[in-house]
Amino acid sequence: MTRVAVYGTGSWGTAFAMVLADAGCDVTLWGRRAELVDAVNTRRRNPDYLPDVELPAAVRATTDPAEAARGARFTVLAVPSQTLRGNLREWAPVLERDTVLVSLMKGVELGTTERMSEVMAEVADAGPERVAVLSGPNLAKEIAARQPAASVVACRDETVARGLQAACHTPYFRPYTNTDVVGCELGGAVKNVIALAVGIADGMGLGDNAKASLITRGLAETTRLGLAMGAEAHTFAGLAGMGDLVATCSSPLSRNHTFGTNLGRGMTLEETVAVTRETAEGVKSCRSVLDLARKHGTEVPITETVVGIVHGGVPPMVALKELMSRSAKAEGA
Amino acid sequence: MTRVAVYGTGSWGTAFAMVLADAGCDVTLWGRRAELVDAVNTRRRNPDYLPDVELPAAVRATTDPAEAARGARFTVLAVPSQTLRGNLREWAPVLERDTVLVSLMKGVELGTTERMSEVMAEVADAGPERVAVLSGPNLAKEIAARQPAASVVACRDETVARGLQAACHTPYFRPYTNTDVVGCELGGAVKNVIALAVGIADGMGLGDNAKASLITRGLAETTRLGLAMGAEAHTFAGLAGMGDLVATCSSPLSRNHTFGTNLGRGMTLEETVAVTRETAEGVKSCRSVLDLARKHGTEVPITETVVGIVHGGVPPMVALKELMSRSAKAEGA
Repeated sequence: MTRVAVYGTGSWGTAFAMVLADAGCDVTLWGRRAELVDAVNTRRRNPDYLPDVELPAAVRATTDPAEAARGARFTVLAVPSQTLRGNLREWAPVLERDTVLVSLMKGVELGTTERMSEVMAEVADAGPERVAVLSGPNLAKEIAARQPAASVVACRDETVARGLQAACHTPYFRPYTNTDVVGCELGGAVKNVIALAVGIADGMGLGDNAKASLITRGLAETTRLGLAMGAEAHTFAGLAGMGDLVATCSSPLSRNHTFGTNLGRGMTLEETVAVTRETAEGVKSCRSVLDLARKHGTEVPITETVVGIVHGGVPPMVALKELMSRSAKAEGA
Repeated sequence: MTRVAVYGTGSWGTAFAMVLADAGCDVTLWGRRAELVDAVNTRRRNPDYLPDVELPAAVRATTDPAEAARGARFTVLAVPSQTLRGNLREWAPVLERDTVLVSLMKGVELGTTERMSEVMAEVADAGPERVAVLSGPNLAKEIAARQPAASVVACRDETVARGLQAACHTPYFRPYTNTDVVGCELGGAVKNVIALAVGIADGMGLGDNAKASLITRGLAETTRLGLAMGAEAHTFAGLAGMGDLVATCSSPLSRNHTFGTNLGRGMTLEETVAVTRETAEGVKSCRSVLDLARKHGTEVPITETVVGIVHGGVPPMVALKELMSRSAKAEGA
């Protein structure tokens, strides 16, 4: 039986632990808080993030990173992007030497502009055959309800990708393999920024035509950046690119969307944070994505607009108007 | 002042006549019913399709095809796809010899599997420099309300595309040029079929993850078919491909969506037609698209599934399950 460690008890980490258990794995979920770990072990619930879901018996929880790590063929990381480096430094010494690190995270590290897989490889000193990512149109709540979904598991080593595919394939969760790790990660990271832009457009009262254009041009700028970074175009046209973006933007309850809507209605960043009581991933990622684009000499007008609104105090109306009147005569030019 | 004839008084034909007038053109709208034509001329309204919109003074209407045609630099065709051939045969003798025919239609002719531009070229004996299409995320009601939208104008002759772009460019309507007529048309035609599939999925109670996967794989099969027909991949990644598909699928009030939802809930085709009192475009197009795919030796599993449900009486649950369990190991394979 495949042993898997899942670090992180947020809604996606917990739901994916359930998927792994349903696929026949023996799963240990690591959480920091004893109370939550107890709830998983005694009541089979994660009261904080997925209170309505009964977890399978094959999911056990622990607060001990070493216990979680023991014998794990796959080590799934599902912590907030910006905390990965610090957390993984703490866990690295106890991980199995040959375990494959799997990222469920969607972000780019602030400052270093490193993708999650790069942080993982660096901190855990892992070669490309030990670094994988999972990404796709995977709203956690639907997956926790075992509604049908497809996803992409990517590793430079296709055999490893196939092993991971087998470890999480269930009748309701269908993973496809891919070797384009960079493309899968970038699709996930930039979609949070585009979702924020779509939320802002919604808040401003723009309609489905304008939002569909934003989504389309948003994927185009993601693809452009990806190609400059060595990713492949077909990844962005697939589930980890277009699929994830469309699912996120169709879900008006997503944090990025709600956050953007408030900004689009004219709230300041501070007011929005006060109202939503948290910061959306796109708010943090947009600066790293812009840094990454500058490093690779790529134009990312939508990301730039989001950074201007979120961090530069540019009024949404002014920023969006400027974005939409950019001179462009031929499509793709 | 550019003279434009618009044949067809449906919501899109009427809204686009308004766009042309706002862009400075002198527009004549042809309609069959005298009552509707009178309403446009005397009350500046199209009571049947856009009752709330006041049309600009530069839009006049007539029931006389010859009067509409006179002096027109562009002849815009906006009639139901399956009626184009018959209608255009009637109008062709009165059209200006050098007028550019512009299709707003999204369909493939049943039987011949011809795209609208092919029917136009054939019936009006027009060369590629006189055949153009306009397509994109353009829900007519939003455009009639002058909400911001972008679109694609395609003609094999780029100078003609630029002329059309200038004729319909307004502060709220932003057309991009493209020379890939086949790609733009196919994107529009197949999206009706995919929207029907998404509606069916909705009716079956599937969530945003599954719908985003359907949309993604739907665009992938459209692209595959397009490439086999000589279209370019970037067109499908653009506004006339992904943009139009996303806008249509985000709009739960679209005819294709509503129609599909009823089918997904278990109604038969007859019951659905009885309830919605009309047939969605995708219901007609799906067979032509499948014929086209067979002719070009391309696999279109989603279209095939829709044909099976709509015309073959296959229960949606059985059809969707089969679709989702198709063996596919690597993405794109």
